[in-house]
Amino acid sequence: MRRWNGWSEEGAVPRVPAAALRLLADAIGPGLPQRDARFEDVVAAVPESRLTDDPGLSTDPADRVRHARGQSLPDWIALRSGRLGWVPDAVARPATDDDVHRLYGRADRAGAIVIPYGGGTSVVGGVTPAAGEERPAITVATEALSGLRGVDEESGLATFGAGTVGPDVQAALAPHGLTLGHFPQSWERSTVGGWVAARSAGQQSIGFGRIEDLFAGGRLVAPAGTLVMPPHPASAAGPDLRQLILGSEGRFGIVTETILRTVPRPAHEAIPAWFLPDWPRALAAARAIARAGLPLSMARLSTPAETETFLALGGRPGRVRALRAWLRLRGIGPDPSLLLVAASGAEKLVELAVREVGSIIRRHGGTGVGGSLGRQWLRTRFRTPDLRDALWDAGYGVDTLETAADWPQIGELATTLPAAIAEAFEGDGERAHVFSHLSHLYPSGSSLYVTVTFRLADDPDRTLDRWRRMKAAASAAIVAGGGTISHQHGVGRDHAAYLAAEKGELGMAVLADVARRFDPDRRLNPGALLEEAGR
Amino acid sequence: MRRWNGWSEEGAVPRVPAAALRLLADAIGPGLPQRDARFEDVVAAVPESRLTDDPGLSTDPADRVRHARGQSLPDWIALRSGRLGWVPDAVARPATDDDVHRLYGRADRAGAIVIPYGGGTSVVGGVTPAAGEERPAITVATEALSGLRGVDEESGLATFGAGTVGPDVQAALAPHGLTLGHFPQSWERSTVGGWVAARSAGQQSIGFGRIEDLFAGGRLVAPAGTLVMPPHPASAAGPDLRQLILGSEGRFGIVTETILRTVPRPAHEAIPAWFLPDWPRALAAARAIARAGLPLSMARLSTPAETETFLALGGRPGRVRALRAWLRLRGIGPDPSLLLVAASGAEKLVELAVREVGSIIRRHGGTGVGGSLGRQWLRTRFRTPDLRDALWDAGYGVDTLETAADWPQIGELATTLPAAIAEAFEGDGERAHVFSHLSHLYPSGSSLYVTVTFRLADDPDRTLDRWRRMKAAASAAIVAGGGTISHQHGVGRDHAAYLAAEKGELGMAVLADVARRFDPDRRLNPGALLEEAGR
Repeated sequence: MRRWNGWSEEGAVPRVPAAALRLLADAIGPGLPQRDARFEDVVAAVPESRLTDDPGLSTDPADRVRHARGQSLPDWIALRSGRLGWVPDAVARPATDDDVHRLYGRADRAGAIVIPYGGGTSVVGGVTPAAGEERPAITVATEALSGLRGVDEESGLATFGAGTVGPDVQAALAPHGLTLGHFPQSWERSTVGGWVAARSAGQQSIGFGRIEDLFAGGRLVAPAGTLVMPPHPASAAGPDLRQLILGSEGRFGIVTETILRTVPRPAHEAIPAWFLPDWPRALAAARAIARAGLPLSMARLSTPAETETFLALGGRPGRVRALRAWLRLRGIGPDPSLLLVAASGAEKLVELAVREVGSIIRRHGGTGVGGSLGRQWLRTRFRTPDLRDALWDAGYGVDTLETAADWPQIGELATTLPAAIAEAFEGDGERAHVFSHLSHLYPSGSSLYVTVTFRLADDPDRTLDRWRRMKAAASAAIVAGGGTISHQHGVGRDHAAYLAAEKGELGMAVLADVARRFDPDRRLNPGALLEEAGR
Repeated sequence: MRRWNGWSEEGAVPRVPAAALRLLADAIGPGLPQRDARFEDVVAAVPESRLTDDPGLSTDPADRVRHARGQSLPDWIALRSGRLGWVPDAVARPATDDDVHRLYGRADRAGAIVIPYGGGTSVVGGVTPAAGEERPAITVATEALSGLRGVDEESGLATFGAGTVGPDVQAALAPHGLTLGHFPQSWERSTVGGWVAARSAGQQSIGFGRIEDLFAGGRLVAPAGTLVMPPHPASAAGPDLRQLILGSEGRFGIVTETILRTVPRPAHEAIPAWFLPDWPRALAAARAIARAGLPLSMARLSTPAETETFLALGGRPGRVRALRAWLRLRGIGPDPSLLLVAASGAEKLVELAVREVGSIIRRHGGTGVGGSLGRQWLRTRFRTPDLRDALWDAGYGVDTLETAADWPQIGELATTLPAAIAEAFEGDGERAHVFSHLSHLYPSGSSLYVTVTFRLADDPDRTLDRWRRMKAAASAAIVAGGGTISHQHGVGRDHAAYLAAEKGELGMAVLADVARRFDPDRRLNPGALLEEAGR
């Protein structure tokens, strides 16, 4: 069972390698472990539900606590300290579209707000209303809207209930020889409906496609009615309404069913690792790879700071020393960049793609180190979030944030964004360990994914202040640098104030109009995506 | 100079090969040539403009006639017969965003409607209001909003004025070693703004991307303000507003500037041709190719009927007989299907893709015939629309229509759609020559492109009736068969009545809300995309 106040399974917090903790202590000082609130105490303090008259709604305080927060850093501070501030009055578990419609009727009669809740993995404040929301609240868990409902094997279209989590998607497709190829880091817990609502990207999305490429159609159930999106392979029949639902973050309705484009499971997959001699040449190589038109499913370039951290987390200091020595002999170092590339598909195509990447890398002074680092990454790719629990226990907060921009801008942002983050902590006399990678290389630019580790303060409010300053500085740097406020995490409440910078005033008005059409009484997920005027 | 009442250049109507005319006469009877109205007479009959008080507007009758119609069959009937019915009161040629804003002010004062006009190549009634529109009309030619405005060579982002036509895009990118790779059949005359507004696909879009993949951002100038769309490579920051502008067909505003994603010009391109023994095996091979994950830029599969016509149009009966004999020796015939495949990119990648296609084809009983048919197609790909003029002169009308659907549905539609079209003519005691191809193969389905040739009636109104019956039958068959009402031509006025079948009532209401936000007084392109309630 998943722990109530973090990411990992109950009792399964991993050990942080000693080398990594030393690196962190040297960089930003020793962690300050904080005492967690006890689940029982938090549950006991939950206020009485205002929606007790409906046997179809769960008003169990433990259930409500478990659906009160997502996985953002403010969520963690609230959960670990036990100061939740807000819990929903009830949890609903609709199993059909009709259940959802009835639920809206129920909310209407109670004057309640409705918050869709898939895996609860939002890291941007996607499932908790803004402070000041006083209406009763029903959180709608989509877990009963799950499972494979049909496969069109000719087209590879697979219909899933929107509450299906990643591993269940993959398991249901396996007997058909199909894969979705969508692996966001939250994959084990997040749902297809959540992927659609938050416009998610997976680790191998440059090959298999982002969720906007994979979501062929489906159904959105809104207070105003149901939107059925047919899964045409392509269309010129007016604006694409799917693209309005993708990223709607529960403001327009609840995605109940998704028709997903799947492909034959790749016959072959290779994830070779390469080292580039320094960041400028690494960036140039990444750009050249992105523009070479090669069939890759992933390309992930770590900055020198992340490369060092990645090697330290491998937990084998002897091997790392040997690797560094080997690289130095080849003129690579002292601050190399690690590039992981994945190619997935027919064997010859994979081989050709890897060969072409190799020749680009060599032209930029880099070298290959084979498949073991790629295998390490593949083995641990869904385990790294567990480290967040381990580091918290050691007294460190970890947050991630990300953006995407064109090539010239991303080159700048890779410098200015970490600098702005580090500077934000200096005001508090603190340091932060900041590292980043380009996680998705596109022909016209790249995403930039930043991990921030900092020391917890001795008081949750001070930790929250520390985070807020950092988040504001980072978001301002992203906007100033021409990046999007999110490449893969979504908007939620934490990014809502920055959305107008890229949508414009007229664009924001359009989104508000659309929300009003789907949800005339504004019950759905208030404050997410669109800030509430006058609340 | 382009002729005023058709497609080809003045005086450049091609000859239809005798074999093709014989084939047509045998199939549907001899053509009934009609006499065209003279341009001078039509111009002389144009009613006086109601907008003569503005020196910034052209009210020249010849100019107005040349901007009154697009390229749909009803447009042709109107132009050839000289019964235009409607002409705009003025033609505007804004050169800046400010000019467009001023134009809206001018329209406001005059109570006029505003019709954006790129290349005027709409084949679905995109530039002419519905009968009964009585407000003064300003048609906005975008030709002065044209040209390359900047290239970010690192990202391959090229900024073009929206009135730039295809050849000018290609010519401007060539010195940078870049290509857009977007080749709709209207390429020589259509504009980037038109591609965006009508959500166009190019012949090689499965490789280079449809316009929705290529349109990274830009500006839309609407009566309510300007929407600036930043060209982020990807984003999870809420719904994608670009995707709302793509396919908006001038209802939301005028696209004035587009930022396009270009790629290095492919080092290599191959367009081998293959023959499949019969339609069922051809369809199965196409599906297998589409799902094999190969880097192709085109795959175009002709039905046996289209294959026969394509060979007849080549105009070399001796060579065709030899080819047929050669195919029969290999067990292919009597009704083979022609498949053209293009691969574009690095030489080794192209070779590999072609090899893999070959092995799929052979598994389905087909054989390759080398590159000469592909070269013929490439040489003539922008000339085939000229044949429409030649056939009209010979007394035949030609129309094309298209859809896209999932694999099981497209297999059905490839039979039911031509049958419905043929049947529609039978009511009039006429026959039609109908042939089709799958023009874009997607992993989950395909487009289906149908060409219809029929005899003109001895009266333009009867020809129009004939066409209307055909169009209604075809559209009904597409909707019944689960296809989209358009894969690449758009909606215009001819498809507007069928849009609700795929968008739903709630979806149509959303689109109307968005139109109202951008264009509160409903001046823009009334009747296109969204039918006007109560008009």
